[in-house]
Amino acid sequence: MSMQPVYIAGEWKTAQASGEFHATNPQTGEALPETYPVSSWEDCDAALDAAAKAFAALRGLPAGAMSDFLEKYAVCIEQNAEALVSMAHQETGLPASPRLGDVELPRTTGQLRQAAAAAREGSWALPSVDTQTGIRSALAAIGPVCVFGPNNFPFAFNSIAGGDFAAAVAAGNPVIAKANSSHPGTTRLFAEAAHAAAEEAGLPPGTVQLLYRTSHADGERLVADPRVGATGYTGSRHAGLKLKAAADAAGKPIYLELSSINPVVILPGALRERLDQIAEEFTTSCLMGTGQFCTQPGLIVLIAGPETDAWIETMATRLQQAPVGTLLSQGVAQNLAQGITTLREAGAELVTGGEPQDGPGFRYQNTLLRVTGTGFLTNPAALQTEAFGNCSLCVVAKNLDEAGQVLASLEGNLTGCIYSHAAGEDDDAYARLEPELRLRVGRLLNDKMPTGVAVSPAMNHGGPYPATGHPGFTAVGIPATLRRFAMLQCYDNVRSDRLPLLLRDKNPTRQTWRCIDGTWTTADVGG
Amino acid sequence: MSMQPVYIAGEWKTAQASGEFHATNPQTGEALPETYPVSSWEDCDAALDAAAKAFAALRGLPAGAMSDFLEKYAVCIEQNAEALVSMAHQETGLPASPRLGDVELPRTTGQLRQAAAAAREGSWALPSVDTQTGIRSALAAIGPVCVFGPNNFPFAFNSIAGGDFAAAVAAGNPVIAKANSSHPGTTRLFAEAAHAAAEEAGLPPGTVQLLYRTSHADGERLVADPRVGATGYTGSRHAGLKLKAAADAAGKPIYLELSSINPVVILPGALRERLDQIAEEFTTSCLMGTGQFCTQPGLIVLIAGPETDAWIETMATRLQQAPVGTLLSQGVAQNLAQGITTLREAGAELVTGGEPQDGPGFRYQNTLLRVTGTGFLTNPAALQTEAFGNCSLCVVAKNLDEAGQVLASLEGNLTGCIYSHAAGEDDDAYARLEPELRLRVGRLLNDKMPTGVAVSPAMNHGGPYPATGHPGFTAVGIPATLRRFAMLQCYDNVRSDRLPLLLRDKNPTRQTWRCIDGTWTTADVGG
Repeated sequence: MSMQPVYIAGEWKTAQASGEFHATNPQTGEALPETYPVSSWEDCDAALDAAAKAFAALRGLPAGAMSDFLEKYAVCIEQNAEALVSMAHQETGLPASPRLGDVELPRTTGQLRQAAAAAREGSWALPSVDTQTGIRSALAAIGPVCVFGPNNFPFAFNSIAGGDFAAAVAAGNPVIAKANSSHPGTTRLFAEAAHAAAEEAGLPPGTVQLLYRTSHADGERLVADPRVGATGYTGSRHAGLKLKAAADAAGKPIYLELSSINPVVILPGALRERLDQIAEEFTTSCLMGTGQFCTQPGLIVLIAGPETDAWIETMATRLQQAPVGTLLSQGVAQNLAQGITTLREAGAELVTGGEPQDGPGFRYQNTLLRVTGTGFLTNPAALQTEAFGNCSLCVVAKNLDEAGQVLASLEGNLTGCIYSHAAGEDDDAYARLEPELRLRVGRLLNDKMPTGVAVSPAMNHGGPYPATGHPGFTAVGIPATLRRFAMLQCYDNVRSDRLPLLLRDKNPTRQTWRCIDGTWTTADVGG
Repeated sequence: MSMQPVYIAGEWKTAQASGEFHATNPQTGEALPETYPVSSWEDCDAALDAAAKAFAALRGLPAGAMSDFLEKYAVCIEQNAEALVSMAHQETGLPASPRLGDVELPRTTGQLRQAAAAAREGSWALPSVDTQTGIRSALAAIGPVCVFGPNNFPFAFNSIAGGDFAAAVAAGNPVIAKANSSHPGTTRLFAEAAHAAAEEAGLPPGTVQLLYRTSHADGERLVADPRVGATGYTGSRHAGLKLKAAADAAGKPIYLELSSINPVVILPGALRERLDQIAEEFTTSCLMGTGQFCTQPGLIVLIAGPETDAWIETMATRLQQAPVGTLLSQGVAQNLAQGITTLREAGAELVTGGEPQDGPGFRYQNTLLRVTGTGFLTNPAALQTEAFGNCSLCVVAKNLDEAGQVLASLEGNLTGCIYSHAAGEDDDAYARLEPELRLRVGRLLNDKMPTGVAVSPAMNHGGPYPATGHPGFTAVGIPATLRRFAMLQCYDNVRSDRLPLLLRDKNPTRQTWRCIDGTWTTADVGG
């Protein structure tokens, strides 16, 4: 079978390939038929040139062109929903329904439409006007953005359709998408829809481009290239940190989402009050997507006592009884097994699971581990190893102080939760532990598992390093996500007809929020 | 004479010194009497520990404590103005009046008061409330901030009194200040005032600390330390990039202001219209502070023609006639001479100046160089060498296209200006050149030299790499500067009495701007 073409400069072209690869059906372990290219630097270089040209050409387009594209693209995706769901199901093993077709696809088109609305409206850019000094400023497109998508959300975080893509495009940037190697076919279908929408919207060729894979060296060269504005990456810590080093050395912003074990503290009063309910919530959250969520609760901090023993016992039973899902790839299965080995070697004991699951495809038993707080504190680095998949580690601290020390030893995470007694029995414990957790997580939850990530303007899907590369930014939540792919552009004494519409006296949409002399308003300047 | 103590954990202590140094009076070239320590890692470690403790203790303080401190500090500085101005004049050679006493000192206390007001008010944190999902978020203190100040603004960018300091403290962070070695005595006087103000405001010891100097290795270790939240650095590109590499590798945000030659395009119509006026503006801007401004216009882009020849001739005369100021240090004088040598070796020709100035102290003739556009384009990297001081390079392009190529070859800069004919003769040229310049600078000016940097909410004193480390942030302009020293903290389903005041239903000040369900308002949630 011939090799799939890459999408560069508005055309599907034969790749300048240095190799090829296949996707694998994780439910069977068998390779899928299509052959995809590993692009050489020539492809990267051509894409960078086309993106730079597109970026220059985008200046001449009407304000709404990117929004038109994003909206048309959402429609094209919906028109191709069946093919996308079927392909993604084959490539990832994720259920076609409800997960792919009824949850993730609508979320993806919803994100594209929200991003389109944000771009049209303009408030995301935090326009600021100082009438006294004649200085005006706003965020604006930073230049071509490289997007590297993860394996676990073939739609909502897809490099050519997901959150980073939508944000980068809505901020006014061309995107060079690098497909995740585990679902190239899904990404190809998206690119075909994007191609149709981009032509319909009249975008310059090269505004949206797709490569399937490059060598690691070319990936590092790509994110550091002078033609690039910034990069968005979601994936493994190891690969992400290599890209980060390359981008950092070139002074190129790179936004990373790397790893997170999402600590959940369950206080004794909460367990006394609603042990079964919390076990139910935890089971659902822990096993959702076979545990392959960025926000999967991988670390549970408990205080020693009869409630905690009972809860862990309940959890063991529930995890044994729950169906065992399919993992996304052989690599994920291997890393999960390796992660569990590392945790056990560092002192964690098996409560349940701990072996690959019999039968076809990539599966591993639902696994629960436990370690004492004292044990955790003897080797906190190893015991924070991310075992990405259907596995969690319970840390049973002997008392509140030890629990505090456990939290204080944690690296940065996306989320942190505290479950506490509804009527206040745990309030002192909460007050003791919350400050330690707060500084180490991007999103703090009460009485709620972290796996739901609403596309809300107030969402933070980010957190301190090494969960991400910078704790001030979020990868989910429009319009804040757009601000990552932007530079601050200030105008000082610039003649009014030379200002961008966003910063002229007249409010360009009558609805755009701008900060004029310290007051947020949708009025005109001087109006 | 005994060594000056360092200020750690609220006390003046004998440094654990690995060496010592003196400041030099640049007007005489002679060493000043006081001896200052080069701190060993023990001092850094003690400061980091104290800062971490202070950061934890700050949570327990009333909301206005940091603002109280900043305001009291401004008063203490004013009370010690005479001593500060005298010391800074000795250490930097900058005129006591108007520069130090009448311009920079009021700007410094003004910044501290603006930062205090921003901290009290809270809008800087971009509080966001989504009532539908129950998610709320805002920026919040990131943790202890290291501040490295530059040599050229002993007050307004001082590591313990300047813009980065004010921003970091107002965002809620302890600061470890590293003095600039050229003005340790000025920095010591500030620290004494800060000490008094911090005690009066009841801040925990370790909220503000001062080291004078460390080894380069310890500086790199400092910015990468787990106890650090972030770093602000203003100074040379070479030293800054070493700190950046260390901080980046540790995943610690670092905000840098490194170098900038601030291109100024002067179009032919503008010269035909007001040649002398532009020459006057340029002379003032070029020589202000003996050219030692971050925004000094170091590169002038002109189009070949009789107006341009006449302007350069006028400039030569003006620069020869203007007084020659004192440079900040021997290092600055040496770097300026070296920079001019590099520019000449790369093809620039001397128009005027080009030699050290006779007489005492560190001085160099006011210098103007020129090169053709073609010449510039043969070696754009070397011809962008920053000759920090009273020197500029004219690039005379043969036509508009070549001028466009010159601009397209530029690295990132803080500012870029275009002078054009008031009645529109240069409008086509402006339209051709502005897009190239816009992408490469943080602040774009019309018909105005870049050396004025207003402390305006709309100011951008930042720009693309290598002017700074990230084009989305500014080092001047409150409240935006505070956002650099912050992490995004999201609350999901958190009980209302556990939310920070800023995110509760009731507006904490009745004046704080918050984005509630997409609308910026000072109202209560649901109010």
